[in-house]
Amino acid sequence: MSSKFYEVPGGVTAPAGFLCNAVECGIKDPKKRRLDLGLLYSEHPTITAGTFTTNQVKAAPVRLCQKHLRSNDVRAIIMNSGNANACTGPRGIQDARSMAASTAGELQLKPEQVLVGSTGIIGLPMPMDRILPNVPGLAKGLSRDKNMDLAHAIMTSDTKPKVLSVEVPIGSKKIRIGAIAKGAGMICPNMATMLCYITTDAKIGLADLKRATYVAVDRSFNRISIDGDTSTNDTVIVMANGASGQRQLQAKTPSMGLFLDALEYVMLQMAKMIVRDGERVTKFVEVQVRGAANQVDARKVAETVANSLLVKCSWNGSDPNWGRIMHAIGYSGAKIRESDIDIYFDGVAATRNGLVADTPIEKLRAVAAKPEFSVMIDLNIGRADYVVYTSDLSQEYVDFNTAEYAVPAGTTA
Amino acid sequence: MSSKFYEVPGGVTAPAGFLCNAVECGIKDPKKRRLDLGLLYSEHPTITAGTFTTNQVKAAPVRLCQKHLRSNDVRAIIMNSGNANACTGPRGIQDARSMAASTAGELQLKPEQVLVGSTGIIGLPMPMDRILPNVPGLAKGLSRDKNMDLAHAIMTSDTKPKVLSVEVPIGSKKIRIGAIAKGAGMICPNMATMLCYITTDAKIGLADLKRATYVAVDRSFNRISIDGDTSTNDTVIVMANGASGQRQLQAKTPSMGLFLDALEYVMLQMAKMIVRDGERVTKFVEVQVRGAANQVDARKVAETVANSLLVKCSWNGSDPNWGRIMHAIGYSGAKIRESDIDIYFDGVAATRNGLVADTPIEKLRAVAAKPEFSVMIDLNIGRADYVVYTSDLSQEYVDFNTAEYAVPAGTTA
Repeated sequence: MSSKFYEVPGGVTAPAGFLCNAVECGIKDPKKRRLDLGLLYSEHPTITAGTFTTNQVKAAPVRLCQKHLRSNDVRAIIMNSGNANACTGPRGIQDARSMAASTAGELQLKPEQVLVGSTGIIGLPMPMDRILPNVPGLAKGLSRDKNMDLAHAIMTSDTKPKVLSVEVPIGSKKIRIGAIAKGAGMICPNMATMLCYITTDAKIGLADLKRATYVAVDRSFNRISIDGDTSTNDTVIVMANGASGQRQLQAKTPSMGLFLDALEYVMLQMAKMIVRDGERVTKFVEVQVRGAANQVDARKVAETVANSLLVKCSWNGSDPNWGRIMHAIGYSGAKIRESDIDIYFDGVAATRNGLVADTPIEKLRAVAAKPEFSVMIDLNIGRADYVVYTSDLSQEYVDFNTAEYAVPAGTTA
Repeated sequence: MSSKFYEVPGGVTAPAGFLCNAVECGIKDPKKRRLDLGLLYSEHPTITAGTFTTNQVKAAPVRLCQKHLRSNDVRAIIMNSGNANACTGPRGIQDARSMAASTAGELQLKPEQVLVGSTGIIGLPMPMDRILPNVPGLAKGLSRDKNMDLAHAIMTSDTKPKVLSVEVPIGSKKIRIGAIAKGAGMICPNMATMLCYITTDAKIGLADLKRATYVAVDRSFNRISIDGDTSTNDTVIVMANGASGQRQLQAKTPSMGLFLDALEYVMLQMAKMIVRDGERVTKFVEVQVRGAANQVDARKVAETVANSLLVKCSWNGSDPNWGRIMHAIGYSGAKIRESDIDIYFDGVAATRNGLVADTPIEKLRAVAAKPEFSVMIDLNIGRADYVVYTSDLSQEYVDFNTAEYAVPAGTTA
């Protein structure tokens, strides 16, 4: 982390003027008491930006968010786990609208001021009879102390809540940025099944916030990959309410630079938390590519290596298998010269000029045995680079996705 | 199979004028006696066509074959398992050349008349001291009875030898087509790690044989997928020696049509054998797409669904999970309308108009529990179709690719 900002507790309610709450309403499992419905609220008007899944099959809440963000005056986000409200047709759209309208009613807002986020089973209708009666209580209980409850309420197969907040001194004042996220499974560049909600009390213009969000997402969530699948519900929302009292951040100033660095830091940490908590992941691997002819090629190589099943399996077995990496580079579609390629595990050469390097295999095995390591691929033909954060593929992942979590004629998002 | 041709025994030596042999020379494991070096030979001049991996990292034998096929007068193929001679640099090229030259010397041929095929570990030098001394014996023992030995000699992680031959009556005479192949693991469209050698005693022109090979490969080997990885060594070679006595096949005649049908049948059966014997596969699934706007889109959808880890995991668990299939369709990049998509398991509707179909879940589960079934996706927006043959993803696949088969600083191809 930069020495210019530091972590503070509080998550999405660390920035001034944000409240939240979460309740158990039986969406995940009517019999078990688990938090599954949450609400995030800003006491002040906000500037809000969002980025969404690139999957053409978009869940109803994604479509609703995209519409409501056109009229920028968002004050609240209602979110649930247990049902993704995806592949649910016109009824799904109606259900998402009802969630927004009901929340707006309790908070004296217009429905367009409320966003909706859902994650869970695909293809089954939302249990609105369980959701709607809980909205009044949800709104009444808004507080600054419910951040961890909210983080729990959006978890599906996540094993841990994902929360972070930082404070950034700017001149004599301070701004804060807070975040919660859920991930686990189907994590791939272009944002697979993950939700991330970010709050800040910075004051910033809409165009600047949109640009900042786009750039930070591109450098964080779009660079993670667990299984190569992309989802129907991915959402990153950034709400800025200006409640810090700091004056408005202006483009190309040092203050804006600090804010951008802090926002990118928060998103990158959240993205890494998602990879580390990916379904049954045992290794966290940073795939670095450099020396590519251009950035498109650098990205192709990094993503192809990160998504190769055989490469992932080798990592799971702590095997520094550079041959499988050469394979993947070869079919990535990027411009390469086999005899120029160098590959390093945590800086230790495995491959030089496309051939096995003169490194004792035990040194490489020691790196591949670590829970976190980097694979650096130098194509040595240009100057472009790219990085992807990824994981191994474990037997437990397959087990998890074949049995425990299988649901009747639906899936999770 | 068409009623116009039928299977006969004999494999690559079923067609007239082909001989073969295989020996144990300790490439796979010096201590174990396993067939690992083979030779296929035509007593008569041939017309030969080949298709090769699209991976930019090409093994030395692939480069040699591409060069030797430029001067068309191929009479022999020397092949080995245990070492892929890939990522081996200039020394690898020299080793492949020595294998061809040594074989040519024994058979009174020019080196350019000999092709080379290798499969096995990547990145380690070929044990030429074990290979070259065995070439004279290999050539001396050529016979019509060693087809099964040859099929065994190219196996790596295959559990079964892959052999087929058919006879096609054309007018008063008969022609035959024979094949051996190895596959297992890394099987993907555009020919992952697989070798397939096909012989025929038909008489055919070079341009016609090249076209026939291209079309048949496109409809067979390029439509199979196990793990989405493509390899460095893939090779399909078709040798035609005219020894049937049948007159030369002419383009656009019924006789040529029969030959093309039989060649495609042989390749498709070999391709399906490879999927069924894929590393630890438990399900064989035919992914059919229809109603696409164009064939590129149809192919994108079929391949994206066939390569989705989450879809493959669901099949492994006998789960008719249409939500994961919708996901994959959504990120395939093809033009789709969510509300038009229908999905069937062996003809039983799981999804209608993008929504869960009115089918008892038990009927769908019964299909997904079968060892072989079809998934048909109707996009309902056009008239193009495509089919891919694929498999599930099992825990055993992951186990196999992490542990048992891991080799020091290399991989297999």
